[in-house]
Amino acid sequence: MNNHPFDQALVLTPTDAPGVYQGNTSVAYWNMVGPFGGITAAIALKAVLQHPALLGQPIALTVNFAGAIVAGAFTVSAIPRRTNRSTQHWVIELTQLDQAGLAEVMLTGTAVTAARRSTWSSDEISMPAVPRPEGLPEEKPMTGVEWIHRYDMRFVQGAFPTEWNGQGDASQSQLWMRDAPARCLDFCALAAMADIFFPRVYLRRALRVPAGTVALTVYFHADAAQLAESGSGYLLGQARAQAFRNGFFDQSSQLWNEAGQLLATTNQIVYYKE
Amino acid sequence: MNNHPFDQALVLTPTDAPGVYQGNTSVAYWNMVGPFGGITAAIALKAVLQHPALLGQPIALTVNFAGAIVAGAFTVSAIPRRTNRSTQHWVIELTQLDQAGLAEVMLTGTAVTAARRSTWSSDEISMPAVPRPEGLPEEKPMTGVEWIHRYDMRFVQGAFPTEWNGQGDASQSQLWMRDAPARCLDFCALAAMADIFFPRVYLRRALRVPAGTVALTVYFHADAAQLAESGSGYLLGQARAQAFRNGFFDQSSQLWNEAGQLLATTNQIVYYKE
Repeated sequence: MNNHPFDQALVLTPTDAPGVYQGNTSVAYWNMVGPFGGITAAIALKAVLQHPALLGQPIALTVNFAGAIVAGAFTVSAIPRRTNRSTQHWVIELTQLDQAGLAEVMLTGTAVTAARRSTWSSDEISMPAVPRPEGLPEEKPMTGVEWIHRYDMRFVQGAFPTEWNGQGDASQSQLWMRDAPARCLDFCALAAMADIFFPRVYLRRALRVPAGTVALTVYFHADAAQLAESGSGYLLGQARAQAFRNGFFDQSSQLWNEAGQLLATTNQIVYYKE
Repeated sequence: MNNHPFDQALVLTPTDAPGVYQGNTSVAYWNMVGPFGGITAAIALKAVLQHPALLGQPIALTVNFAGAIVAGAFTVSAIPRRTNRSTQHWVIELTQLDQAGLAEVMLTGTAVTAARRSTWSSDEISMPAVPRPEGLPEEKPMTGVEWIHRYDMRFVQGAFPTEWNGQGDASQSQLWMRDAPARCLDFCALAAMADIFFPRVYLRRALRVPAGTVALTVYFHADAAQLAESGSGYLLGQARAQAFRNGFFDQSSQLWNEAGQLLATTNQIVYYKE
């Protein structure tokens, strides 16, 4: 398992300061001008989960992409700012040294972890009725970026446009996804997959304008046991925008496992140009 | 304007430390065992907006409610951790002194502000066709809490349950809302109204179990000019849960102005018991 590229990308080495870790960017998850945002979100969460004072399991994660991460070393910190009886509040930061040796903030974030207890539960959004992944072709939405080879993606709806004719009319995608090679699901993998959807503006406009995620929030509905039950199966992801307005659009997404259980809901706000 | 209880609740006094302010909780926005979460979110955003180094307008705000704020003085800080050409990344914290005089963290948060530019824009979610607010009765969803008197609320769907019989079957509310007395809309008021919805578990179950917001994220689609155009008119708010699972549920919400423009989308994750 530890030889999986995902686990290699998430190797964080403790430093003398509690909650402060050293890591290195991963060639395997490289995007166009920096790492895949999902791997960076996963690294932020890993720093929390690796902390010796961790209480409970992830409930909420927010990361803000503050600067363009460059290839090489980074420092990530996860500090528990408040620990209650059953919840814990984390502040996260990722920095890289600039050419003058000064730490530049590349990511800010927060997380909440909690001890979960069994209660009355109900999924309010049903998984859409879609064909099974095995019968669908594997597709790489983009070419020329490395990280998409780390995922097996099978689109049901809203695939990557093949004609950039400005004639798009919808922003929703549905796709089956899993790590490639397959890997048992855990919180970090789920956080990464929350960012797997290509920019909604590409689909809505059928126009490839510059775009990049500014902030991402993930709510974890599943606990570790439910993630383990999902094994290395596919997840169904659904994403759509609610508004595109003057340089920013939002994306509202859901991730179900093959059994139809809603594992996470996630939102992001994305910069776009033109 | 400055005599409005909302503005009074948001008075922050600068200290010698840049971005660090002193404030006091407001009796006018008191909830059951602490301030209305929306007023606390608004205070967090106010700290950002009041900073002399502010760049642009709010795009994203995340606040995590870490502890039970008590009546009295608090300190709120908003620090710009990274400033780019057109975006700025903020880390927010609100503390109160405990009986030993030590600062306790009550809220963690982040925000992103940005210079907005005019681009191609499109609302992907239309405002639901609902009756106008003037023809609907004003309702107070809860009794015994002060802050609800600071809002004029008119429910279209999913009003506060009148029978706690455990027979609920849906989690969606739609209501018209505005400040009472009326007040021109701005970013802080919008952030507060993002938290106006009573806990979805009350409605879904028709059961009043302990519940409280843990984390709240607001994406601002409107700029200051669009908010000003909304004036002191009503906003239509819509909120629903996507999943209730083992102690936490999410809430996905939209806020439109009377003209049908989507001003903000907002999500939260909420603790519940039983």
